[in-house]
Amino acid sequence: MSEFDLIGRYFAALGPERSDVVLGVGDDCALLEIPAGQTLAVSIDTLASGVHFFADCDPEHIGHKSLAVGLSDLAAMGAEPAWATLALTLPESDENWIRAFATGFGRLASAHGMRLVGGDTTRGPLSVAVQVHGLVPTGAAIRRSGARPGEAIFVSGTLGDAGLALRRKLAGEPVAPELWHRLECPEPRVALGRHLRGIASAMIDLSDGLAGDLGHILAASAVGAELELERLPLTSWVAEVVAATDDWSLPLASGDDYELCFCVPPAHIPVVERLSETLGLTLTQVGWIRSDAGLDVRRPDGGQLRMPARGYDHFPAANDGAD
Amino acid sequence: MSEFDLIGRYFAALGPERSDVVLGVGDDCALLEIPAGQTLAVSIDTLASGVHFFADCDPEHIGHKSLAVGLSDLAAMGAEPAWATLALTLPESDENWIRAFATGFGRLASAHGMRLVGGDTTRGPLSVAVQVHGLVPTGAAIRRSGARPGEAIFVSGTLGDAGLALRRKLAGEPVAPELWHRLECPEPRVALGRHLRGIASAMIDLSDGLAGDLGHILAASAVGAELELERLPLTSWVAEVVAATDDWSLPLASGDDYELCFCVPPAHIPVVERLSETLGLTLTQVGWIRSDAGLDVRRPDGGQLRMPARGYDHFPAANDGAD
Repeated sequence: MSEFDLIGRYFAALGPERSDVVLGVGDDCALLEIPAGQTLAVSIDTLASGVHFFADCDPEHIGHKSLAVGLSDLAAMGAEPAWATLALTLPESDENWIRAFATGFGRLASAHGMRLVGGDTTRGPLSVAVQVHGLVPTGAAIRRSGARPGEAIFVSGTLGDAGLALRRKLAGEPVAPELWHRLECPEPRVALGRHLRGIASAMIDLSDGLAGDLGHILAASAVGAELELERLPLTSWVAEVVAATDDWSLPLASGDDYELCFCVPPAHIPVVERLSETLGLTLTQVGWIRSDAGLDVRRPDGGQLRMPARGYDHFPAANDGAD
Repeated sequence: MSEFDLIGRYFAALGPERSDVVLGVGDDCALLEIPAGQTLAVSIDTLASGVHFFADCDPEHIGHKSLAVGLSDLAAMGAEPAWATLALTLPESDENWIRAFATGFGRLASAHGMRLVGGDTTRGPLSVAVQVHGLVPTGAAIRRSGARPGEAIFVSGTLGDAGLALRRKLAGEPVAPELWHRLECPEPRVALGRHLRGIASAMIDLSDGLAGDLGHILAASAVGAELELERLPLTSWVAEVVAATDDWSLPLASGDDYELCFCVPPAHIPVVERLSETLGLTLTQVGWIRSDAGLDVRRPDGGQLRMPARGYDHFPAANDGAD
């Protein structure tokens, strides 16, 4: 089966048909219509074998996660998913692998009304680059730069589960299936992001750990923040590790949570609480924005830890130690 | 120097500032405004080390070519370049390499008024995925599917130079610098593509060889074609190889030409001739579209060759032999 056949068979029709796709897979470019009053939001991410997933990872999960990370970026702007493109690098033409990958990718695309409109397949070490395209009403996108002193900092879901799954896998320890699922099949918080338009002042998705990613909001907004560790939403798996070790690096500085971190003025806190009920998704206030620069983290015993505001770094040689 | 620093320093401001970039590099998504009456054209392509370029290739040329292949796709639709995103996978954090790559990428972006608006850097085997975004007046994009019987088939520039450069390099033979340049630094025919709106009925860029790429136009348009080999525009380098070997695979079926192949009704042939003078770019009629399916190639001696209409295939196991 040749490259052209593979692309044609499995990637020609992933996700629902959309009337704004003038021309999809199969020409030099896809042609897309942006409605009046909407701004285009785009993000590109690569998942590489051995860096972002294990070489023996279920290809259906690779398909899911390679789109999920982009959907999480759209969520973090409050954008509505629309279209995706896919640059897939594969060591060999393995039809079973491609079918499973397309299944995972297509299922998540369909769940979010997103259509695959173009792609490229190359031979080489396994790697997946996905660009997502979303739409957001003009002026309504939620940036990193809007946080103001006195605002509450919220996170969705729970923190550190994916990091714990990875740590256990690397140590050869058993990993509970639900915990493993958090690492391999993250659920991007698209509906939450959309509902936070007009409510959140700043937002980011947690791909590199709360301390580092919140640090990006602080830098972009020219503010500081305080976090209270006892407020962090933890599953019992992560809570047990923290209790046993007094090491907070899992919820503060491990990657792949794909939860949203956002800031809201105090007047909007009740709206966030109602939103949590509407969506059936835990939303937890973990701290607040202040005018003084830096990120201070209060320990449950009253102690304080000054965090370097850096996230996961793929080139750690000169890293300053936050990972 | 960490990943964040690298991205920040070299990729934050490549290409000219554009007023339609609401938000560029540095948030979860870039935010882009599409003017009323314009359709968005997008294409993604990966260049991988050892597949699309040699591992020791000048990084400035890799930067150039990784954007050029996308610009060539925009040209083939008649679209105007607007924005690019970049997913860069690097084995190590090498500042000299990144600076040179950014120089090559940025110079070509600036030449076409294109801004880099987002990216992702990952550690892994060297690979570059670039998505290009262009604008084309709604309804004016030139697709593969518009060719009609009786139309003339044109190509820009000359064919087979990049293929000859590659063949000589692989054989350890000397390669003239101008010939090598055709392989490493192709010039996407963006102005030509834009001028052919309303004139060409169908268009494709030649990335995999004339026979295979024209075959995509034929399949999409449900027509056939005849090519006359003696009309093919060849440099003296390629003409000498063909004369010595009677092997036409260089101009017909070697990759990386990045010229445009397009079809025009006979009434528009004089327009194309004037356009050639205006742009200072050779535009050559190489055949014509017919209603009977298939691609027939007439040899200079009057003989005929029936070509399998396939291009370069990265998974050649089941390839039917056109490469």
